[in-house]
Amino acid sequence: MSEEERIEKGKALRRTVLGSAYVDRPGTSPTKYQAAFAKFAEEHCWANVWIRPGLELRERSMINLAILASLARWPEFEVHVRGALNNGVTEDEIHEIILQAGVYAGIPIASEAFRAADRVLADATDSDPAK
Amino acid sequence: MSEEERIEKGKALRRTVLGSAYVDRPGTSPTKYQAAFAKFAEEHCWANVWIRPGLELRERSMINLAILASLARWPEFEVHVRGALNNGVTEDEIHEIILQAGVYAGIPIASEAFRAADRVLADATDSDPAK
Amino acid sequence: MSEEERIEKGKALRRTVLGSAYVDRPGTSPTKYQAAFAKFAEEHCWANVWIRPGLELRERSMINLAILASLARWPEFEVHVRGALNNGVTEDEIHEIILQAGVYAGIPIASEAFRAADRVLADATDSDPAK
Amino acid sequence: MSEEERIEKGKALRRTVLGSAYVDRPGTSPTKYQAAFAKFAEEHCWANVWIRPGLELRERSMINLAILASLARWPEFEVHVRGALNNGVTEDEIHEIILQAGVYAGIPIASEAFRAADRVLADATDSDPAK
Amino acid sequence: MSEEERIEKGKALRRTVLGSAYVDRPGTSPTKYQAAFAKFAEEHCWANVWIRPGLELRERSMINLAILASLARWPEFEVHVRGALNNGVTEDEIHEIILQAGVYAGIPIASEAFRAADRVLADATDSDPAK
Amino acid sequence: MSEEERIEKGKALRRTVLGSAYVDRPGTSPTKYQAAFAKFAEEHCWANVWIRPGLELRERSMINLAILASLARWPEFEVHVRGALNNGVTEDEIHEIILQAGVYAGIPIASEAFRAADRVLADATDSDPAK
Repeated sequence: MSEEERIEKGKALRRTVLGSAYVDRPGTSPTKYQAAFAKFAEEHCWANVWIRPGLELRERSMINLAILASLARWPEFEVHVRGALNNGVTEDEIHEIILQAGVYAGIPIASEAFRAADRVLADATDSDPAK
Repeated sequence: MSEEERIEKGKALRRTVLGSAYVDRPGTSPTKYQAAFAKFAEEHCWANVWIRPGLELRERSMINLAILASLARWPEFEVHVRGALNNGVTEDEIHEIILQAGVYAGIPIASEAFRAADRVLADATDSDPAK
Repeated sequence: MSEEERIEKGKALRRTVLGSAYVDRPGTSPTKYQAAFAKFAEEHCWANVWIRPGLELRERSMINLAILASLARWPEFEVHVRGALNNGVTEDEIHEIILQAGVYAGIPIASEAFRAADRVLADATDSDPAK
Repeated sequence: MSEEERIEKGKALRRTVLGSAYVDRPGTSPTKYQAAFAKFAEEHCWANVWIRPGLELRERSMINLAILASLARWPEFEVHVRGALNNGVTEDEIHEIILQAGVYAGIPIASEAFRAADRVLADATDSDPAK
Repeated sequence: MSEEERIEKGKALRRTVLGSAYVDRPGTSPTKYQAAFAKFAEEHCWANVWIRPGLELRERSMINLAILASLARWPEFEVHVRGALNNGVTEDEIHEIILQAGVYAGIPIASEAFRAADRVLADATDSDPAK
Repeated sequence: MSEEERIEKGKALRRTVLGSAYVDRPGTSPTKYQAAFAKFAEEHCWANVWIRPGLELRERSMINLAILASLARWPEFEVHVRGALNNGVTEDEIHEIILQAGVYAGIPIASEAFRAADRVLADATDSDPAK
């Protein structure tokens, strides 16, 4: 697979996992820095790691939530709660991942992670056309 | 389930996951602090989190490796590499978890995690009677 | 002491330390995740650690502020500034704890901790009926 | 150099690096804690480290951005993006520092750092009288 | 108090807290970096923070152990376990501080902190002339 | 530049910065995990970040030491102290970087970083044929 093919495959996977509504969300046009980061993330995260075989997408999502919660990276954690739901991780499984992080990374991590996950679930409900 | 039953169930699960060879490893008699920690860990980690339904043991092991690598907790990471192998996580899956942590928690995390995992695999090979 | 008694004792202590105004603060009804976290925190933090003898409550509060500041857990830090004041830690002692954290955890920690403590003190003044 | 001279020199350097507009920014009068932190920072950071010879100011700014990004200290990071621009670090160099932190401290660090830097650049543009 | 007096007072306090046996421990002559760090630590930690009134030394030791454990700074933690014992913190109180850190900073922190504290206690026993 | 060219350029740069003595150091043949990490590091760090224009190599080395010290990644920090010396960073500049990290990331970081840097300098002296 050429580098270009790998990057295209990574971009497509990013769209599948995070959803077109997120990837194409309207907003102000990106700054120079935002555009640079998007390119960097596409090449490093999606084209190099997410597209690898060896773990199911559902498992990568679980692992990613565990990493992001442990490091208290809340904006990125929220993005990947959305991705995890798209990859078939259930709300109850997210609950278990957060409790496990609470014991191994400290209880305030669980407190902040539950709040961040709640924000995503509230958003999902708000924008649900079937609501 | 009473508290006593839960703690007994947690102890039994700890033995299953980490293995009797590890739990009963010979050594100097534990200090007061070591005994206190063992009790604390049994009650907090094993009786409260590990025995919960909602995730397969194999998934809990994957998540735990992701948390411990992200936080650079290497002695505990080594213990849980052993536990992950016992819970059916393969060497190749451990490899993927470490690469994912390397991208999201920084590349030196991958470097140190691979070294820690190698120490466990070397030990496992050394003490393998079938070798 | 049975598990139930210990949990009840932990809940009562949480109310004493954080104050009824905080514990019963009005708000939207808790989400499923919030309710799960409250139960987890009551059982792990309050029923298992805070109720232990061996340290005065005032000392536990000081230690807790030091831990939460070092890890930059600001929402939880704010809750425990309030608890520390209730446990008899003075504003000047909180000042000293933050300076100590500034030297050992890095000066930006002191900057953020002073800001978080100021928010709590401003709230306390605003809602003080004797003001 | 006496302690008083060193502290005066540190204060002057702080004003040069962060700019008078920042140091004298209007606002509510500082709380007791804010005043204490300002004194602590002047004595520890500026009078003890920043005024040292051995590195150019431009290099100290680069190093400082790397430290603050790695530790996710965003409010302080924003202050020092402004200082770095004053010390002659270019926007493109800030871009490179953030990418380097993204690889060594994890990609969510780059995401949050780009956002924080964008906020500073947007502010700088807004208040630019020549705009 | 002049800067010189403050630094002298800090040095004397460091000797009181850490003990002459530690401060004057024989060894190879310090490298240039070691000498630079000793001066930096004396001026920043001891002359600026430890000598401040506002907290008892015993309380500063407790807080310091909490900070160092939370950040997993084990070599410095060991030095301050020794200092805490000298300042009147008991082994049982150190035990409580570590458990509190285990809940708020994650259980592997408690595991590593107990091991580090055990090393100090073993050393203290070995070199105790009354043994 | 094709992906292959970029990776070759990254490998060559790694050899220049870290030195052939390090890259070709004799040892046991690498494990599967070690080989996987070397490939990952070459592609992510060297071929993607280090070869970028926009910062001098000397500046990248300074920034890298600041990042690795702040995160307490000591084995990787040691590798890059060696690289920094090869890139023209002086021992006195390394000293300044460590002091700056000591103030912004906490004083134990300076203590551990000076020790790690001393190990590298001692090694360099031991193997210096001109000694």
